[in-house]
Amino acid sequence: MSTTNSIEIDIQKAATSKISQIDFENLAFGNIFTDHMLLCDFADGAWQKPVIKPYEPFLMDPSSRVFHYGQAIFEGMKAYKDEQDSVWLFRPEENFIRFNKSANRLAMPSVPEPVFMDGLKELLKIEQEWVKKGKGNSLYIRPFMIATGTGVIAAPSSQYRFMIILSPAKSYYSGEVKVIIAEHYSRAANGGIGAAKAAGNYSGQFYPTKLANEKGFQQIIWTDDATHTKLEEAGTMNVFFRIGDTLYTAPTSERILDGVTRKSLIELAEREGLKVEVRSVLVSELVEAVQNGTLKEIFGAGTAAVVNPIIGFSYQDVYYELPPTENSYALQLKEKLNNIQYKLAEDTFGWTVKV
Amino acid sequence: MSTTNSIEIDIQKAATSKISQIDFENLAFGNIFTDHMLLCDFADGAWQKPVIKPYEPFLMDPSSRVFHYGQAIFEGMKAYKDEQDSVWLFRPEENFIRFNKSANRLAMPSVPEPVFMDGLKELLKIEQEWVKKGKGNSLYIRPFMIATGTGVIAAPSSQYRFMIILSPAKSYYSGEVKVIIAEHYSRAANGGIGAAKAAGNYSGQFYPTKLANEKGFQQIIWTDDATHTKLEEAGTMNVFFRIGDTLYTAPTSERILDGVTRKSLIELAEREGLKVEVRSVLVSELVEAVQNGTLKEIFGAGTAAVVNPIIGFSYQDVYYELPPTENSYALQLKEKLNNIQYKLAEDTFGWTVKV
Ligand SMILES: Cc1ncc(COP(=O)(O)O)c(C=O)c1O
Ligand SMILES: Cc1ncc(COP(=O)(O)O)c(C=O)c1O
Repeated sequence: MSTTNSIEIDIQKAATSKISQIDFENLAFGNIFTDHMLLCDFADGAWQKPVIKPYEPFLMDPSSRVFHYGQAIFEGMKAYKDEQDSVWLFRPEENFIRFNKSANRLAMPSVPEPVFMDGLKELLKIEQEWVKKGKGNSLYIRPFMIATGTGVIAAPSSQYRFMIILSPAKSYYSGEVKVIIAEHYSRAANGGIGAAKAAGNYSGQFYPTKLANEKGFQQIIWTDDATHTKLEEAGTMNVFFRIGDTLYTAPTSERILDGVTRKSLIELAEREGLKVEVRSVLVSELVEAVQNGTLKEIFGAGTAAVVNPIIGFSYQDVYYELPPTENSYALQLKEKLNNIQYKLAEDTFGWTVKV
Repeated sequence: MSTTNSIEIDIQKAATSKISQIDFENLAFGNIFTDHMLLCDFADGAWQKPVIKPYEPFLMDPSSRVFHYGQAIFEGMKAYKDEQDSVWLFRPEENFIRFNKSANRLAMPSVPEPVFMDGLKELLKIEQEWVKKGKGNSLYIRPFMIATGTGVIAAPSSQYRFMIILSPAKSYYSGEVKVIIAEHYSRAANGGIGAAKAAGNYSGQFYPTKLANEKGFQQIIWTDDATHTKLEEAGTMNVFFRIGDTLYTAPTSERILDGVTRKSLIELAEREGLKVEVRSVLVSELVEAVQNGTLKEIFGAGTAAVVNPIIGFSYQDVYYELPPTENSYALQLKEKLNNIQYKLAEDTFGWTVKV
């Protein structure tokens, strides 16, 4: 691996590594971080020199805009290690572009590509020991940006901090997932920020999800807020429905995040000769399909788990369970996508990028 | 003033005060803070002992949930000084109740009344020199709560920090305000968090407001996101329309913040014998009223300015200017409300609370 930087990064190495204390076989998602983080401040109208330094807390003023007005965005991606110990990213350009789309929607400055991409690669080179080999293992990557400018005025900040932190992850198994179809609460407004990976989109889902959890459901499938008739997406996953032998997923919109996994699965499915239709699926269609036996699968699609099969859903207080899946599209597609990500199959799409 | 606490507060006084360096005649809103702040942490399922200590930055972990999922709420209120040097709050109970409603909607723990109210009063006693006498002067109070728990998992935090910071304010004059009626962007979804004073509701408005600013408009009046036909509220103000001699304001809903100023103005107006109707006003009605000359006033209502007269609005790229106001309801109501707040008129409503 080369250590040449395309941008100058100030690198301050940690004196010791905590990697030997980590039990890589028993990792809960998202709460252990590697030795270093990347940090780049925006001030006086310009991005300052990026720094890679030991992972540690930093000082924030109580009036920092992120605390009061939620000016904060993030991305979620993963690094994978192949059998030859090379580290790979999956479609990182998509995350970079989406990050700056989110930034624009929240009136935050764009992060320059070298800061995001070269910064990330440099950080990954330093932390390569944290990326474990073997299917299911990965290093979860969390780029984010927060408004660090001070003052309790509801207006965009003039200072920001871009950061990348890394968290080792095991294969994600969420157990049997049952969902509730949203009838009252909503995730996003027409003309709102639902298509951005904005911090404010998530906290609003916690309370309705808590109510769902109390009823024995793990997640909510959100519907359009105006009519609650169209199926949209889940908390951190886009959603696919297999009715008969066709896969359906909602078109992306201002209300729906344009997921990298979703778009990759669509392309993969099409290459595999599966029928995919990108169109709104009505709740009524779903109920009809489960009743007449044509609803074969529902699954979430996102970076964390690739696919997350859903075994049943509740709507208007009736619980509908799906029949046992034969010949699951979800699992086939997951396998194919994972094989590309772990370099176990040829990447004919050109999706993988070596660090 | 008594210094007895109903709750135990750990008080750490600042060695020196910066008050002598402040130019109280030239204060920009919200960027100067007093010497002390209140802080109370929620951990292990319980609120810890509140602390009043010097205003200063504090350490945050990069994976703090507030940065990633926007679990953050706030309140905005003011303290006023009367001619006898007593400090007064205006309907603080309303802010306390609303704060905990916001907390509930964002799956955050309720702040106990003594922490919020006695904590605030204690802080105000220490900072009473910062509340200046004279109409227009006030001390802006910003209670807020942020998720301080760590981990990049989209789920409620188990640790929180409640804080109160204080910022001296002059009479708020925003210049002549022209607004755009929202035709595409929106502030809140049906079943969303618009009725909560949640951080995430504000950052989503920055980009559309920037676009409005570029066209020469200071603010946006939001409409319902489904049809964009009903007038709702502005960025940090509820909105009133005077058509003929009737004042109209939208009913509060899941999409609209239940403003303390709004509800106080309604009560005051009714006491003054003005006709007030709480009902949705359609954009089409507003256009018709301005065209036939019956639209006499539009004004925003909020803690910062009490009322903020709006001189014109743009809709579908047509700008409609209001005729010069005679006998302004907005200014009459502002005067009456200010007189109660500054103890210059009898508070027959029992709204003011002595610190
Ligand atoms: C709201 C939402 N939908 C969908 C997704 C899936 O997107 P991706 O496949 O890019 O991870 C995410 C990301 O985690 C998300 O936050
Ligand atoms: C969205 C919104 N609407 C209205 C208001 C006015 O509320 P209040 O009168 O309680 O200050 C605020 C508060 O500042 C607000 O943030």
